[in-house]
Amino acid sequence: MSVAHQNRAERLTEDEIFQAHRGGKLRTLVPITPLDARALSAISTPGVARVARAIAEDGRLAADYTWAHRLVAVVSDGTAVLGLGDVGPAAALPVMEGKAALFKALGGLDSVPLVLATRDVDEIVETLVRLRPSFGAINLEDISAPRCFELERALDAALDCPVMHNDQHGTAIVVLAALRSSADLLGRPLSSMRVVVSGAGAAGSACARMLVTAGAGEVVVLDSRGTIHRERPELTPAKAELAELTNPRGLRGGLADVLPGADVFIGVSSATVPEELIAAMAPGAVVFALSNPTPEIAPELAARHASVVATGRSDHPNQISNLLACPGLFRGALDAGAPRITERMMLAAADAIVALAAEELAPDRVVPSVLDPRVAPGVAAAVAAAVREPGAPAAPGAAVPPAVPPAVPSAVSAEERK
Amino acid sequence: MSVAHQNRAERLTEDEIFQAHRGGKLRTLVPITPLDARALSAISTPGVARVARAIAEDGRLAADYTWAHRLVAVVSDGTAVLGLGDVGPAAALPVMEGKAALFKALGGLDSVPLVLATRDVDEIVETLVRLRPSFGAINLEDISAPRCFELERALDAALDCPVMHNDQHGTAIVVLAALRSSADLLGRPLSSMRVVVSGAGAAGSACARMLVTAGAGEVVVLDSRGTIHRERPELTPAKAELAELTNPRGLRGGLADVLPGADVFIGVSSATVPEELIAAMAPGAVVFALSNPTPEIAPELAARHASVVATGRSDHPNQISNLLACPGLFRGALDAGAPRITERMMLAAADAIVALAAEELAPDRVVPSVLDPRVAPGVAAAVAAAVREPGAPAAPGAAVPPAVPPAVPSAVSAEERK
Repeated sequence: MSVAHQNRAERLTEDEIFQAHRGGKLRTLVPITPLDARALSAISTPGVARVARAIAEDGRLAADYTWAHRLVAVVSDGTAVLGLGDVGPAAALPVMEGKAALFKALGGLDSVPLVLATRDVDEIVETLVRLRPSFGAINLEDISAPRCFELERALDAALDCPVMHNDQHGTAIVVLAALRSSADLLGRPLSSMRVVVSGAGAAGSACARMLVTAGAGEVVVLDSRGTIHRERPELTPAKAELAELTNPRGLRGGLADVLPGADVFIGVSSATVPEELIAAMAPGAVVFALSNPTPEIAPELAARHASVVATGRSDHPNQISNLLACPGLFRGALDAGAPRITERMMLAAADAIVALAAEELAPDRVVPSVLDPRVAPGVAAAVAAAVREPGAPAAPGAAVPPAVPPAVPSAVSAEERK
Repeated sequence: MSVAHQNRAERLTEDEIFQAHRGGKLRTLVPITPLDARALSAISTPGVARVARAIAEDGRLAADYTWAHRLVAVVSDGTAVLGLGDVGPAAALPVMEGKAALFKALGGLDSVPLVLATRDVDEIVETLVRLRPSFGAINLEDISAPRCFELERALDAALDCPVMHNDQHGTAIVVLAALRSSADLLGRPLSSMRVVVSGAGAAGSACARMLVTAGAGEVVVLDSRGTIHRERPELTPAKAELAELTNPRGLRGGLADVLPGADVFIGVSSATVPEELIAAMAPGAVVFALSNPTPEIAPELAARHASVVATGRSDHPNQISNLLACPGLFRGALDAGAPRITERMMLAAADAIVALAAEELAPDRVVPSVLDPRVAPGVAAAVAAAVREPGAPAAPGAAVPPAVPPAVPSAVSAEERK
């Protein structure tokens, strides 16, 4: 599997990587041409005064005449950056810029990275509340657990706009989509599957919760101390919640105890998995080894025993990336004027990804490519529909993405090339 | 004077103005093409991890590999928006977006508008300190006096990056440039001129201080209660400072008392000036009626008596706009890595504007057009030189802007069309 992919990645030189980041990966652009004296009069004084006065009189007009309601703040404190950990806000910025760049390139979504020199949850909430009139939604990234749970909850309560921690829910949406596609491919219902999630951080917790919501047969979560179950002492509040939702049989022990016979392995920690444990899974197993940059097990080894193998890397097939969920999810939420991100919207996003994957479903294509230009519009349309039709069911497979012209994704959208 | 200009402005319909603002006046742009799988590997995982790690190890690399050190935050609390006053942050946003759009279109400067739902100086400082790793400089706009003085001072102390209140210093730089050009045109030294400044808010105070620094013969400032002088009771701290710096003869009274015989009138309040007072000024008078959108005196009336007339409007000749100073000033400060904006840098910016105006100096061309593509690069180069050569004199006329190809300013720079 994917030798060509790996070679391609290995050929990325240090120079080439740094060159791609030089000067940053974002710019601003002014969609007004020609910028002549007449345009100047309209967009600055005296023209802009009329727009400012109109918004002062009716605040709802800000949605039409500013960019705030199309703008996402990509927010991080740099405490859990990729697999690097707590590298701080300055070192987190190239990652956030990359997200913002890909939100734009893949989904036409405008966003601005904000990295914060504080890791105090109350201070982060306070800061974003003060900035609220500047943007329309907040995407949290690379914030360490369990602070990320508390922060997301506090922001959701404090703000009247969509807020989502991408590492949690973006990942969970795509894992659900990939698992549902795998189940379709293997001809087995999700409800019959025993799922083992290795990692109880931001991504692991959210994946486990979403899989339970979506009706997976059994979900067992492990952290560095083994399975999470109701009787385990000294659980954090977040893990105590997980213990309530998952592991109905109260399984105890480590991976060696629970992985044999399981149908699905989802790795979202950096703990490695020995090949013999993967070999001991049930026939037709599904392995999502999502740790970045080094998967829990090399996909070549996993493929000897599993029917479907996925990783988080762009240089392997079946990339489970939260870029498949966002930017589309935010695009749909903002387009529909949603005041928050709900579970229904997330399930609709997963449905849309499943529907797109179904067109060419294969063991190495259980999710579409991150670069597939149909993904963001498809997800956005399904999410917006879920907002606009609150009565409609958010059942698996309910969302059908609209036909989208297969344009090559580009750094500059057609609208802006005008 | 300028009937054609006025008619052009009158033909801007309400529809046309609102249409120019629809959806906002800014977008993000990704300067990476093609965005293929290889680029994806470089700018997101796994490539971006190397850049993040490098910055974590050496924070100075953030200047090369993120956009923060090229980015200006355009910050307002919406308390003094244009002539509209305290309309709040949401209504201020179209104005800030307009500034950010023009910073980009006129000077290739990336900036992001941040409007704040707080007007507490300490909270604004705290917020921007927390956001510090996200940007490289702060441009304050439309913040009411005297809070703007306190805020600028506090930010300058709290942050290690350039901070400037544009309404104060941007305006003062351009007023100084326009007055110096007028003096050249009229063949009189600035040091012989008696200047009356009507308005002691943000712009008036800064103009008065800068004219004193630049060696104007006499500067007298008036607020709504008349001249500011040392004996006047109950002066605010900012006005007490002005009383020390200006009005050496301790003149008292209103405009009717001090304007007759004066050489220069600078209007930066909304107080109107009757034509007979302008007529009573010294021969060859200079009138800058900068109130927006309605000048203190109609320029047609002023022109009957004065040799040079300027306003703040884009639809009249001689537009004294702080857009002539910024974006170039920030561009130069960021290019040279300046830790703050100094008086020397401001004087260098004014010099550069004077040098550009000198090429076609005429009574209706004492400043270049805001749309003149030579302005921002000329100001930026002069400011950067002032940073890099701290020993060199910042004397009037010292800065010579470099030859810049006369490109038509456009919403997308040539670099980004690539």
